Amino acid sequence: MTDPADPRLLPPDLRARFRELLARWVALPSVAAEGRAQAVTAEAVAEALRGLGLDVEIHPTAGAPVVFAERRVPGAPTVLFYNHYDVQPADPLELWTADPFTLDERDGKLFGRGATDDKGQLASRVVALEWLRRRHGGELPVGVVFVVEGEEEVGSPNMAPYVAAMRDRLQADACVWEFGGVDAHDRPHLVCGLKGIATVDLSVRTAAYDQHSGLGPVVQNAVWVMAAAVAGLRDADGRVRIDGFYDRVRPATEREAHYVGLAPREDDVVARQIGVEGFLGGATGAAWHRRLQLEPVVNVNGLHGGYGGPGMKTVLPASATAKLDFRLVPDQDPDEIVDLLRAHLDRHGFGAVEVALAERPEHPSRVDPDDPWVRHAADALAEVYGTPAVITISSGGSGPLSPFVDELGVPVVMLGVGYAEGRAHAPDENVRWVDVERGTLATVRTIERWAGLTPAA
Amino acid sequence: MTDPADPRLLPPDLRARFRELLARWVALPSVAAEGRAQAVTAEAVAEALRGLGLDVEIHPTAGAPVVFAERRVPGAPTVLFYNHYDVQPADPLELWTADPFTLDERDGKLFGRGATDDKGQLASRVVALEWLRRRHGGELPVGVVFVVEGEEEVGSPNMAPYVAAMRDRLQADACVWEFGGVDAHDRPHLVCGLKGIATVDLSVRTAAYDQHSGLGPVVQNAVWVMAAAVAGLRDADGRVRIDGFYDRVRPATEREAHYVGLAPREDDVVARQIGVEGFLGGATGAAWHRRLQLEPVVNVNGLHGGYGGPGMKTVLPASATAKLDFRLVPDQDPDEIVDLLRAHLDRHGFGAVEVALAERPEHPSRVDPDDPWVRHAADALAEVYGTPAVITISSGGSGPLSPFVDELGVPVVMLGVGYAEGRAHAPDENVRWVDVERGTLATVRTIERWAGLTPAA
Repeated sequence: MTDPADPRLLPPDLRARFRELLARWVALPSVAAEGRAQAVTAEAVAEALRGLGLDVEIHPTAGAPVVFAERRVPGAPTVLFYNHYDVQPADPLELWTADPFTLDERDGKLFGRGATDDKGQLASRVVALEWLRRRHGGELPVGVVFVVEGEEEVGSPNMAPYVAAMRDRLQADACVWEFGGVDAHDRPHLVCGLKGIATVDLSVRTAAYDQHSGLGPVVQNAVWVMAAAVAGLRDADGRVRIDGFYDRVRPATEREAHYVGLAPREDDVVARQIGVEGFLGGATGAAWHRRLQLEPVVNVNGLHGGYGGPGMKTVLPASATAKLDFRLVPDQDPDEIVDLLRAHLDRHGFGAVEVALAERPEHPSRVDPDDPWVRHAADALAEVYGTPAVITISSGGSGPLSPFVDELGVPVVMLGVGYAEGRAHAPDENVRWVDVERGTLATVRTIERWAGLTPAA
Repeated sequence: MTDPADPRLLPPDLRARFRELLARWVALPSVAAEGRAQAVTAEAVAEALRGLGLDVEIHPTAGAPVVFAERRVPGAPTVLFYNHYDVQPADPLELWTADPFTLDERDGKLFGRGATDDKGQLASRVVALEWLRRRHGGELPVGVVFVVEGEEEVGSPNMAPYVAAMRDRLQADACVWEFGGVDAHDRPHLVCGLKGIATVDLSVRTAAYDQHSGLGPVVQNAVWVMAAAVAGLRDADGRVRIDGFYDRVRPATEREAHYVGLAPREDDVVARQIGVEGFLGGATGAAWHRRLQLEPVVNVNGLHGGYGGPGMKTVLPASATAKLDFRLVPDQDPDEIVDLLRAHLDRHGFGAVEVALAERPEHPSRVDPDDPWVRHAADALAEVYGTPAVITISSGGSGPLSPFVDELGVPVVMLGVGYAEGRAHAPDENVRWVDVERGTLATVRTIERWAGLTPAA
């Protein structure tokens, strides 16, 4: 009898299949920000899903096409997989050890743009289902649906309308999200929620053109106006000062607070990694996790105005711009938050600062950490990794989770083949073979435990 | 008998001489910011001054050379001329109607970089002295000293030490400053002071590198820190909030207040020109002049940090920079103001914001508007222009005035050939022939009135 917790069990031909899929997909430069290689990458994904015996359709959207695949099994529950075939831009190219669009194997790792985010995760799902089929008499023992979009890296602007339009065909009993993996201490994480996001562009003009700064005693300064507007949005500890901002924040449930309290300390490791001496509000330990998982925030992504070159230019700038993102928690509404921002600016004398929504907002969403699907996943992770899974109530990041959880009503788990040094979005993005083995097996075992299946072999 | 107030009296050969000098100098691209053409331009200026019968020396400094010229007349007072041979960069080149370094005559105006600032003014001084010599028997009736520097457009970093070192040889009874002219209503202005200036670079770093903005609830944001630091330096009306900033501001004398009160309304014209609907503190009329002439200010010249490109990038910036200038009034001390800034930032939680002096500061300085030299200049202007001169206690701008006024103790007037549309520092910089005629005559008549000279002709 085989030991299902031994990651080395991924059969050699499936290991080869993973590498083959990833090599083919990494070679397609499907950079969403540049709208590149969308149709050809969608078709390459479709081909792999057809190989699992799924019925595949490529659906046009207002942006990149969505690869939809489906195979229902009468009498069995259905698992929905959400993934994406698009990637982040590869620049700065000079920081890559090898070509980002050619899969390169070094030191037990596979390198390339998308190696982990999300082509590696998707290849692992495909191989997991092939393995699952093999372990259960050559047929998929559960229904399977795939939604593989091509615009996740630019905020999934078409996912909410797609899910709404496809509501009936996307019905499922459980969902595996596009990412997951182990932390810096090699502990598997199980993420149960994502923040919502609203991104806005701010701009202000105070005169027809820049002036000599000798006019400073009488002429308003656009950069000062923008700096003051942005400064007033929060305090030094990150507490948001916009009236009504926290009104709809749903208090953490007792169980959510319980899981946040269980999270092992990470702030010390993160502080060393990113070169900071401390965190906002002096947060450490559980308080650090509580802020990161449960607190909404406003971020200024950039502020620009006036002279920024070498030396001095005694100019009085006539215009300035800033970019903000709001990371939101249940039950904050992104559109309402943008309205509150507008009202806040008007009330504090910044009526001249214009506010424009940059991207379609995403709503915050969370899955109940005690949902059976989550519990089965946690048990599978403990079995495969030999250590308990860390339950994360919410990531600090965002994604199109709400349409799936709140519209379709399907519970979601986030697990996979990532690790702390996978460099998603950065040069030398990579995935480790050891995580491919364990993460793929964890996906298989999660489905088997949840559906009450015993492997035939 | 000739009418000395008739500007058409500039003799044709002197008109030709002005054009010849300006054409030669404009062709030399002595852009201070780029350190170009310094020696050759200094030599071209020296040649013109030798033509007046002056003894000329070219003095090296830590930066660009200074052209020093001198001719003392026993028993007669001495006039010192401060000018500069350097110019602003010519870009954006595409906004010039013709080549900026080739003098071009159109519509009664002479166009080219430096046409007014300061090569046109300097050519007018040379022609004025040639004319003065001719009107008084072929010899200069007063002593003359010239200081023509090459770094005025980059803040005259070497002028204060130069004046200190040359103190004995620069002794004079009166001084004509490098600029002056008529306003948008064709009224001659007589400026009696300049603001001091301190320029500083601010920078802050909050982490080793930029982070994903999902970390916003725990990681400090460098752009927010800089925005808050800059916002706190002043209020919405421009009042500076730095403790002690106003402590050394010398109250305006009764006479200074008198002259500021006499200044004709300008805010309405300026508002239309620069496209603003109002001014800081709602200032209009005399209150507008009072702020501009008598109030110190802090300006943010630029603030930059984080993403500023198209679309969104949900980044948490780790660094930000800003540039400030302080425009100061007597008796504020620029170095002390920078110390107060440092203390203010420390006291308000911005200890991480680094402060670096960008350029050597300049002290504020003013001349007594009732000094006989100023009164003679005002009378000469009224005579030449047929309308009273507008006395300006201080420009909003700065320059190396303090070494001359406060170290040498020489009274200074600022008059010349400029006008409101001369576009100094901008494309299509130009000087009008009508102002060359009137401004040159005004210089001649100021000296004649002051020295009690009657033209021989």
